[in-house]
Amino acid sequence: MEKEIGTFELLGSDPSCSARRGRLHTAHGTVETPVFMPVGTQATVKAMSPREMEEMDCEILLGNTYHLNDRPGPDLVERMGGLHSFMGWDRAILTDSGGYQVFSLGKLNKITNEGVSFRSHSDGRQHFIGPQESMEIQRKLGSDIAMVFDECPPYPCSEDYACKAVKRTLDWAAICREAPRSKGQLVFGIVQGSVFPALREECAAGLVGMDFDGYAIGGVSVGEPDELILRGVDDSVCHLPEKKPRYLMGVGEMAQMVESIARGVDMFDCVMPTRQARNGTVSTRRGRYPVKAAIYKEDTRPLEEGCTCYACRHFSRAYVRHLLNVGEIFGLRLVTMHNLHCYLELLKDIRMAIEAGTFATFRAEFHAQYRLVLEEHVEKVKENNG
Amino acid sequence: MEKEIGTFELLGSDPSCSARRGRLHTAHGTVETPVFMPVGTQATVKAMSPREMEEMDCEILLGNTYHLNDRPGPDLVERMGGLHSFMGWDRAILTDSGGYQVFSLGKLNKITNEGVSFRSHSDGRQHFIGPQESMEIQRKLGSDIAMVFDECPPYPCSEDYACKAVKRTLDWAAICREAPRSKGQLVFGIVQGSVFPALREECAAGLVGMDFDGYAIGGVSVGEPDELILRGVDDSVCHLPEKKPRYLMGVGEMAQMVESIARGVDMFDCVMPTRQARNGTVSTRRGRYPVKAAIYKEDTRPLEEGCTCYACRHFSRAYVRHLLNVGEIFGLRLVTMHNLHCYLELLKDIRMAIEAGTFATFRAEFHAQYRLVLEEHVEKVKENNG
Repeated sequence: MEKEIGTFELLGSDPSCSARRGRLHTAHGTVETPVFMPVGTQATVKAMSPREMEEMDCEILLGNTYHLNDRPGPDLVERMGGLHSFMGWDRAILTDSGGYQVFSLGKLNKITNEGVSFRSHSDGRQHFIGPQESMEIQRKLGSDIAMVFDECPPYPCSEDYACKAVKRTLDWAAICREAPRSKGQLVFGIVQGSVFPALREECAAGLVGMDFDGYAIGGVSVGEPDELILRGVDDSVCHLPEKKPRYLMGVGEMAQMVESIARGVDMFDCVMPTRQARNGTVSTRRGRYPVKAAIYKEDTRPLEEGCTCYACRHFSRAYVRHLLNVGEIFGLRLVTMHNLHCYLELLKDIRMAIEAGTFATFRAEFHAQYRLVLEEHVEKVKENNG
Repeated sequence: MEKEIGTFELLGSDPSCSARRGRLHTAHGTVETPVFMPVGTQATVKAMSPREMEEMDCEILLGNTYHLNDRPGPDLVERMGGLHSFMGWDRAILTDSGGYQVFSLGKLNKITNEGVSFRSHSDGRQHFIGPQESMEIQRKLGSDIAMVFDECPPYPCSEDYACKAVKRTLDWAAICREAPRSKGQLVFGIVQGSVFPALREECAAGLVGMDFDGYAIGGVSVGEPDELILRGVDDSVCHLPEKKPRYLMGVGEMAQMVESIARGVDMFDCVMPTRQARNGTVSTRRGRYPVKAAIYKEDTRPLEEGCTCYACRHFSRAYVRHLLNVGEIFGLRLVTMHNLHCYLELLKDIRMAIEAGTFATFRAEFHAQYRLVLEEHVEKVKENNG
């Protein structure tokens, strides 16, 4: 039987930790969780086609409200039939609220209780976005999951400022909760509170009282030391309801995802795999490496041995390195495709492990072989320099 | 029965003109002619994947000897198993000789009867390419068709200089004719002679005496007025043997291809569809138009109505315009894909028309609707400005 839109089925959980296997029903299909959502900032996942995203079994993308509001504008997207139709993607889309980008990208003029005035980073035009405006933009985009407009303080920030940001986030969440939505659109609240556990608790409790379709953990991965990221997760997850999806915003480092899943997180997004790809950095299950390095000049191996993506099935590191060195678009395509495949396969394997009750083993084996930078790369570079 | 490599079958010809339908057998498959060869300068057709090229039934690509010699270098390509293996393309490849680029891109130091000394455009390294070197590079690349190293004078040039270039081209062709080849590699001669019919005849006769696998018409589309391009074709084709393929180098304007085919040309290459795509210029059967223009802002039509390419089946002009305006790679991919599809379909339709004996009608109808710039575009822009 078709489940109601917004239903989050808990299919199972791991005996060793808080990891859980779920399924979120959206207006554009189901999303198997834990899930990594590739970022399609400007109505496209950079360098990729929708067909390629479908072929790697991607079920949900993220679109950025700030960027789409800037260009081409929500009214145009609405007249074109909404974001799905505009970008040729008929699976699920989550849009962020624009809050994070307003604070980090726009030239801020003024923050009030009503919202934020800023100048566009692209052409200097004056904009105003508050909770009403953000929800109205997301309604016009027609995303499957809209995020509340929040205030995301940088790191470090004082407890006093973090407290004010929580209060504003809660006030704005209440407005967003009642704002008009597009058909079948879900809305997630966002837990702020910086590194202060009491504020995280207060924010989570306030949001849960408003009963959202899901809850995000925001304000992490904003420049703080790595160990504080998982602490932010711990301080938030424990106050969130079991039966709703939990989304850790902006976290995409593989080891951090694995650990966050162990703590009960269901959803992730990050520009890391796509942004690093354009810089020539290849993601693998054992860590990343820069394929432009001289040691790969005649390397006939695929980007990652054993990988089944199109890039790895047909092309060598030597070829990809050549393409990147001469500035060919196809080089960016191949690394982007591989990196996204690597991320989506990691999450697929994690889902299978949770289903099979073997996540504890998976987690241990993952960490045993994973380094931030691929060990083999570090050693070869040392050898060559020695 | 499998035909011998190098066999050029003449399958039919048009009663109204010199257009012919042929099939060239190469070491990497057959090539149906007349054919347009997309340009893959640096071991990739810019922005495209080999899979996408196969899906649009492309049977032969062009690689640039000058660029591949520069980076990644012929020795590396040879060690990687040759150009086909390196770039993941198992259909036919034609390589030019590098002559044209040595003269147009390199910083020339010295031209002698042995060849050309120049500095690389990419890193200033000193190189020398003559007929021996060019054939050796092409042997290492392992292309299916190698071109002789020629001297291509610019336009305008004096009859005296054009005459010297023809003599040098013939001397060099004789060396190239006897140079070692890769397995199954064919070699084409190149007719030079600028705008001087007697020189074209002399050059063609000299080459035909050496018996090449095919003959190219070079030194056209080098800056001369349009009407001189077809005159160069006329002045060359009549001196070339019926039973060998004829390749008009660097010509890719649609109307010029149609007219050259009517004069008996079988093969074309040009960067136009791919280069213009990256500039936002869309090719159609009725002429080109810049999709970034404001009039396409909310245009829900595909890039070309009736087109069956992936870009046209799934995306609107409004979406492509947005992607190009915000600098997204996928925009370049979509226009490139469409333009190449448009070219390959034009040639496919021409082949069918010649087979059916209806090329005269096809040619008349093509010219009746074709303008260099799409008529509808010109009119709409006028309207908007009036």
